[in-house]
Amino acid sequence: MSLQWWREPCQPVDRVARDKAAARQDQLTKPRGALGRLEEVAIHLAGLQGRERPSLDHTWIALFAGDHGVVEEGVSAYPQAVTGEMLRNFVRGGAAISVLARQLDARLEVIDLGTAVPLEPLPGVLHLMVGAGTLNFAREPAMTAAQCLIALEAGRESVRRAQQAGSELFIGGEMGIGNTTCAAALACGLLGERAASLVGPGTGLDARGVAHKAAVIERALALHGAHCAEPFEALCRLGGFEVAALAGAYLACAQKGIVALVDGFICSVAALCAVRFNPQCRDWLLFAHSGAEPGHQRVLRALEAQPLLDLGLRLGEGSGAALAVPLLRQACRLHAEMATFAEAAVSDRPA
Amino acid sequence: MSLQWWREPCQPVDRVARDKAAARQDQLTKPRGALGRLEEVAIHLAGLQGRERPSLDHTWIALFAGDHGVVEEGVSAYPQAVTGEMLRNFVRGGAAISVLARQLDARLEVIDLGTAVPLEPLPGVLHLMVGAGTLNFAREPAMTAAQCLIALEAGRESVRRAQQAGSELFIGGEMGIGNTTCAAALACGLLGERAASLVGPGTGLDARGVAHKAAVIERALALHGAHCAEPFEALCRLGGFEVAALAGAYLACAQKGIVALVDGFICSVAALCAVRFNPQCRDWLLFAHSGAEPGHQRVLRALEAQPLLDLGLRLGEGSGAALAVPLLRQACRLHAEMATFAEAAVSDRPA
Repeated sequence: MSLQWWREPCQPVDRVARDKAAARQDQLTKPRGALGRLEEVAIHLAGLQGRERPSLDHTWIALFAGDHGVVEEGVSAYPQAVTGEMLRNFVRGGAAISVLARQLDARLEVIDLGTAVPLEPLPGVLHLMVGAGTLNFAREPAMTAAQCLIALEAGRESVRRAQQAGSELFIGGEMGIGNTTCAAALACGLLGERAASLVGPGTGLDARGVAHKAAVIERALALHGAHCAEPFEALCRLGGFEVAALAGAYLACAQKGIVALVDGFICSVAALCAVRFNPQCRDWLLFAHSGAEPGHQRVLRALEAQPLLDLGLRLGEGSGAALAVPLLRQACRLHAEMATFAEAAVSDRPA
Repeated sequence: MSLQWWREPCQPVDRVARDKAAARQDQLTKPRGALGRLEEVAIHLAGLQGRERPSLDHTWIALFAGDHGVVEEGVSAYPQAVTGEMLRNFVRGGAAISVLARQLDARLEVIDLGTAVPLEPLPGVLHLMVGAGTLNFAREPAMTAAQCLIALEAGRESVRRAQQAGSELFIGGEMGIGNTTCAAALACGLLGERAASLVGPGTGLDARGVAHKAAVIERALALHGAHCAEPFEALCRLGGFEVAALAGAYLACAQKGIVALVDGFICSVAALCAVRFNPQCRDWLLFAHSGAEPGHQRVLRALEAQPLLDLGLRLGEGSGAALAVPLLRQACRLHAEMATFAEAAVSDRPA
């Protein structure tokens, strides 16, 4: 068995189903193209699901949490204890993603990959304890190769459970104080960018805080940048447990044939990692929203991604993806349930 | 009784409720502002509904259809018979708005204000027969003052029914072959713009068709432009039955205290009319999406409107507004159901 399971092939797009869906769209009672992005989405989903009329009724949300050693450099507005406190909030139902999961009738799974402050076991949380947070990547690699493999596998395992539950859509969320610093550093490493072009306020740094964060990332890039051509190495050095789990989940979604809806900046960096691990997985990734964090635009461009929403969101947790689910479902229902010109006896325009 | 009922005051915004909602948003377990536009929406809705936790569970969709005399100038890709054919499609459930109304569990009311081709009575359609379509505004005023009053009142009556049904959100949709020409002409008249800056392909004109449409609108503006300072006069001369009904509906929503969600280009021009009739109504108008029709941007700018979605839609029927309803509902639920920092015992960042 290869350790590099992510290199195994992804599920192919079903071109016949996709073409049938495209032909159907042209016959529905509306001017051609009038439903804009929703038409593209329905046609793309048809190709992925291998049926002319796709559906996304069953949604799985996996929330991956982990702490970041780089927080000791003073890069976050919030104390690190918040990661654990929010884990409780997720399972008690008070967090944004908890509210959205209820509204979508989605299954919400909460996975603790390792917090800096030890937690008593929380009912409803899967504690994997990959480590007591990552190490400070401004000084040393964030993870060992073994930790990174475990975190990648944690994402893959969640997708396995999603598949067993019959889920048609996978949303990965993240929580971890310091993880916009981690995501910006990793994106810089993968894209060969400088910190200044990707760094942003995260949960609420002021201009001085952002400048300090950029300086910390530059230090990390000086230490690790030369080793970032190989994506697994980049992920070990600059990543986080939850980022690796998300990358593993996206790769597993593509291999198992489950559509993945990517949330904001941190998830998009994980998606960039996943695409570097295995470019075939790109087809299976839909992008939910353009976040407020400045680096997000750069990463989306690298992925040639055109997100559905642009609402100035910068929360994470998978919340932006959850907000986009109704649009995907509406795209499917319009595609499946609208009458054709022939069925409705409506005059099409002259060809 | 004044004929100009639209000059009566609109419901005021409840500043106490709005401020309470803003204070609540700051205490929810997320970084301040992290839910972006959804926070603004929840706070604004609180002010409109006069309660700290607003809700939009009951949605009313009124679809106003009418024909346009200007179609005889050859400004549309589709034959005029489509207006009547689509009326059947709306009530039979095969149109986009029919599918979306089902999914939202919204009430869909279909109002025929007057088609050029006479229709037998259609079950489920309210036939008002304001006229056999409008007259060709490239040659003469589109409507008489009496027709315009009847159409405005038709919108107001629909809002009355919506209120009686307990609706918390009003969506106006429109259908009428030729109505992007009407909307562009009316917007030019109200904004003092030239046709070229507002005209677009509508349901699918090619470049030559768009140029012809612009020339037709320029002719209309030469005839009516000098009379457009007074908005009722502009509406009579360049409007359409469904556009007047939408304007009347938006004004009535603001007077009765029902939130209105404005759809695309044609609805936005009706909203511009409504705001010119009575500027107080602006507070009650939310804007759903930035449409593909080029004039839409100009009209949104004039209204200082920032729509929620940008999906390249150009269908009308109220479909873009229906697509934005889940976002509004999610904004309300997040606002109402998320835990505060105190409730969840989560550390807020230092002030």
